[in-house]
Amino acid sequence: MTEAVDQTCHSTHGYTAEKASYLRRLKLIEGQARGIARMVENDQYCIDILTQVAAVTSALKAVSLGLLEDHLEHCVADAARKGGAEADEKLEEAMQAIKRLVK
Amino acid sequence: MTEAVDQTCHSTHGYTAEKASYLRRLKLIEGQARGIARMVENDQYCIDILTQVAAVTSALKAVSLGLLEDHLEHCVADAARKGGAEADEKLEEAMQAIKRLVK
Amino acid sequence: MTEAVDQTCHSTHGYTAEKASYLRRLKLIEGQARGIARMVENDQYCIDILTQVAAVTSALKAVSLGLLEDHLEHCVADAARKGGAEADEKLEEAMQAIKRLVK
Amino acid sequence: MTEAVDQTCHSTHGYTAEKASYLRRLKLIEGQARGIARMVENDQYCIDILTQVAAVTSALKAVSLGLLEDHLEHCVADAARKGGAEADEKLEEAMQAIKRLVK
Repeated sequence: MTEAVDQTCHSTHGYTAEKASYLRRLKLIEGQARGIARMVENDQYCIDILTQVAAVTSALKAVSLGLLEDHLEHCVADAARKGGAEADEKLEEAMQAIKRLVK
Repeated sequence: MTEAVDQTCHSTHGYTAEKASYLRRLKLIEGQARGIARMVENDQYCIDILTQVAAVTSALKAVSLGLLEDHLEHCVADAARKGGAEADEKLEEAMQAIKRLVK
Repeated sequence: MTEAVDQTCHSTHGYTAEKASYLRRLKLIEGQARGIARMVENDQYCIDILTQVAAVTSALKAVSLGLLEDHLEHCVADAARKGGAEADEKLEEAMQAIKRLVK
Repeated sequence: MTEAVDQTCHSTHGYTAEKASYLRRLKLIEGQARGIARMVENDQYCIDILTQVAAVTSALKAVSLGLLEDHLEHCVADAARKGGAEADEKLEEAMQAIKRLVK
């Protein structure tokens, strides 16, 4: 993402208003990842570990969908309002992010 | 998972032989989660953050598939060899884990 | 989707330019679904049937991503240009469609 | 899937007992695919088409999980009971099918 293009999305992003919430959720996810390592360290049962990994994956998916929604409603909508090459780039970037999510 | 049933899967699990590798991968995932929080903290561009979240999600999915494969080839295959109620429980547990993965 | 709102997306949609291609792909998918039924009818091996179901699922996912991309670049971008309630509705609708895709 | 290996899973499969139900569900899926084509033919709204595609994808996923469960409980469990090369092949095949499902 070139610096110049980012600036046109000015210094705040769609997620800025929810920054504290995202940081809390990411802190939880980090702790859950550490917890899974402890379960492996302590030879816990495979299915119980898999259940925890599924929980972290769901938490990450929710963070992704939140960031994507904020981005569409903020950066992409702003760019679409201006139109032109920047709008095309923002829409293309968003679509690539959606494809990675759906993969 | 009742303790008794776990014991029949005796103290080692399918993943035991790969324990060090799983711990290394989980350590990386924990670090990546911390890195994503730093990106949010530093107001980095939404799409760049989403790209990192997709990478962690893929890493977690690979860990899940590895654990599941080890479990099928070890605990489930052992139980199936013995047959009876324990085999049914192990197969049911494995199927629930697969459904969480596919969800 | 109320008729009135749809009209503001005027009679053509993002996919209109690719209509023939979408119809061809959907015809193939329909045929593949019929083919899977025949495999079941003929008592074919489970794994071979699962492989075909995975192929149809991938084809459907590709159709979804194509329709979504066309929609974002056409209906959603148009609405964002106008701004206001219609833009919010289009973005919300698109996000719900993305969540169904990711689910 | 070599003919010989299939025979060891003898003429019936895990899904045989539910054959009529699978055929009904696949018939519905085929009809839904035809319905989506009609929606495109009639220039219906993108989001409404995407909603239908998501419904068919869910129906296919449910068929996949059903077939997989039947296969694990029947062909894979039988092979695991016998052990040896055939058990390894059946487990490997099942794991590949799970990976395609999760992809």
